[in-house]
Amino acid sequence: MADQYAQTGEDKRPTGIPVIRWEEPPEGPVVVLLDQTRLPAEEVELMCTDAPALVEAIRSLAVRGAPVLGIAGAYGVALAAARGFDVDEAAAALSGARPTAVNLSVGVHRAAAAYRSALAESGDGGAAAAAALDAARALHREDAEASARMAGHGLALLEELLPGGGHRILTHCNSGSLVSGGEGTAFAVALRAHRAGRLRRLWVGETRPLLQGARLTAYEAARSGMAYTLLTDNAAGSLFAAGEVDAVLVGADRIAADGSVANKVGSYPLAVLARYHHVPFIVVAPLTTVDPETPDGASIEVEQRPGYEVTELTAPQVPVMGAGGGIPVAPLGTQAYNPAFDVTPPELVTAIVTEEGAVSPVTAEALAELCARSRQVTI
Amino acid sequence: MADQYAQTGEDKRPTGIPVIRWEEPPEGPVVVLLDQTRLPAEEVELMCTDAPALVEAIRSLAVRGAPVLGIAGAYGVALAAARGFDVDEAAAALSGARPTAVNLSVGVHRAAAAYRSALAESGDGGAAAAAALDAARALHREDAEASARMAGHGLALLEELLPGGGHRILTHCNSGSLVSGGEGTAFAVALRAHRAGRLRRLWVGETRPLLQGARLTAYEAARSGMAYTLLTDNAAGSLFAAGEVDAVLVGADRIAADGSVANKVGSYPLAVLARYHHVPFIVVAPLTTVDPETPDGASIEVEQRPGYEVTELTAPQVPVMGAGGGIPVAPLGTQAYNPAFDVTPPELVTAIVTEEGAVSPVTAEALAELCARSRQVTI
Repeated sequence: MADQYAQTGEDKRPTGIPVIRWEEPPEGPVVVLLDQTRLPAEEVELMCTDAPALVEAIRSLAVRGAPVLGIAGAYGVALAAARGFDVDEAAAALSGARPTAVNLSVGVHRAAAAYRSALAESGDGGAAAAAALDAARALHREDAEASARMAGHGLALLEELLPGGGHRILTHCNSGSLVSGGEGTAFAVALRAHRAGRLRRLWVGETRPLLQGARLTAYEAARSGMAYTLLTDNAAGSLFAAGEVDAVLVGADRIAADGSVANKVGSYPLAVLARYHHVPFIVVAPLTTVDPETPDGASIEVEQRPGYEVTELTAPQVPVMGAGGGIPVAPLGTQAYNPAFDVTPPELVTAIVTEEGAVSPVTAEALAELCARSRQVTI
Repeated sequence: MADQYAQTGEDKRPTGIPVIRWEEPPEGPVVVLLDQTRLPAEEVELMCTDAPALVEAIRSLAVRGAPVLGIAGAYGVALAAARGFDVDEAAAALSGARPTAVNLSVGVHRAAAAYRSALAESGDGGAAAAAALDAARALHREDAEASARMAGHGLALLEELLPGGGHRILTHCNSGSLVSGGEGTAFAVALRAHRAGRLRRLWVGETRPLLQGARLTAYEAARSGMAYTLLTDNAAGSLFAAGEVDAVLVGADRIAADGSVANKVGSYPLAVLARYHHVPFIVVAPLTTVDPETPDGASIEVEQRPGYEVTELTAPQVPVMGAGGGIPVAPLGTQAYNPAFDVTPPELVTAIVTEEGAVSPVTAEALAELCARSRQVTI
């Protein structure tokens, strides 16, 4: 089975990071994931032969990032269908694996709906499984295309906001090829700027506690030959104060109908710093991230993760010592507050860039209009 | 030789953390330090037999925190004098060991001045060495007393700003017994509130890259039986947004004449968040931290530390793998921006609490007046 990326008709993956793919070896279909918890030290693939394995991979963050979670969820449904497991049960487990990224349940729903519809029509489980796989592949392909369009719209917006180029962009967490069927969301914009000779520096916040910036964004930036510098999330304040940040670009895990943005914890403090320093704070996300069912920021469920992610240091090479598989740094018994995401209100977001264009200022009306336009295009 | 703490006439150190002391075993005088890089895993003491060993301990952060750096610098001069080394050379090396905390050079200068003055008067090296040691001990004792007075003034200010108690205080880095001849600066205020039954929760920012919050403040809070919760520095934004922070209390490494505060990197973003959320941001520091020679924030030299503190994870138990003695988490060759401190302008500081009382609002005039009052008291 050829890699999905080949199906987009053009090279959407110049950095060649094999994040997720469907394979059909003689033993039966599998979803193959790059284990992101092992990066950048090792490139190790995980073979998921059933939905529970995929649920575990999602929970452990072996695969993470809103858009690719949707793709993983859809492939998971296709996998359950192809292997003859209970599709409804698999869909429920996959949807609930992580609560904040809406893309996950959207992807699961799309493949499950295709399955049920084909089953109702043909009564043939094999045809229904094929329909689920087709839906997953379509989502994968569309995400790659959306990524390319977001990159274009994002760079156009940067040029408009910051004429002259030489952009110094601060980003947080990871929003590149590793989260996407294509080159990602916020990172894809920075990469497009880099290729256009318009990127002066990518400031990479390390993104505690799991260091997705240090481990994953730095890895992607290095592979792409970008000028990048890593910093503790703490040090962003000094950069703003020194006038070294021209724009902040981040992805999103869920965007409420009012334009409130849930993204990796630490995004909100950057939004407040950006506002204080009159620097644009730009969110880049596909329209599948917008959830019209979530009216506002307060309605977004924020995942609370185990305290040991904060009280212990973990890295692939660290010997297992603490309850969380890492080395304790805080006194034993220390309680930790560890939300995975935070919510930035729309008034702090300069623009939301989607595959259908940018919304700025961010209002419920403008966002709804963009979503409606997207549905017209799709239908 | 009895522990210095006994000389203050009352128990200033109920948590009993032996941070720094002068000892005179038969082999000759030594400065004994608790190696803070090994906490909380191990309580290991370092015996410094000469000034270069103490310089190395200061550079490696085995001893750190503005007030105790002053004490360490003074004992270092006394050590060089007692062991017959070149006192001027030792003083220069100690003063330059770290650039940002003004207390270090103030402490060095005080002991060196006592030495030179006694030498000029008596011509006797032994008497001059004794004078340097007396100066160091006096500084140690005064710092413990200043700490107790700051705690009182700080709690009074909290009660005034936040009547009703039940304070939820966010702190950053470590500013307790480990940085002081007494119970510290900002932490001492929280501890006083705890003892008065007025502390509802101490939120402890972990303080990347070296995790002084997770390793040291959590250690002190646990020893004191305080209700504390650890968080990544990133997660502070969510706490503010949820209305869970009543006040921010931090220490300082240098306060410029205009009231600009250099403190551990990450303090400035907290000040901006506090302002955005209308929460008091309070700096607690002895008057020795105020440097009238530094006119403003832009004049404060901020120490840039090695990038490997960011690109590698280190903990006492981690096997040595990278150039910095830790485990690489970012791709090899990753460049890092690693300022040790940031500068918060006076307009973001609600109050500066010193042993002579609080300054609020923070102005150059009010600060100068407090310093003048202090000098009158001392003379």
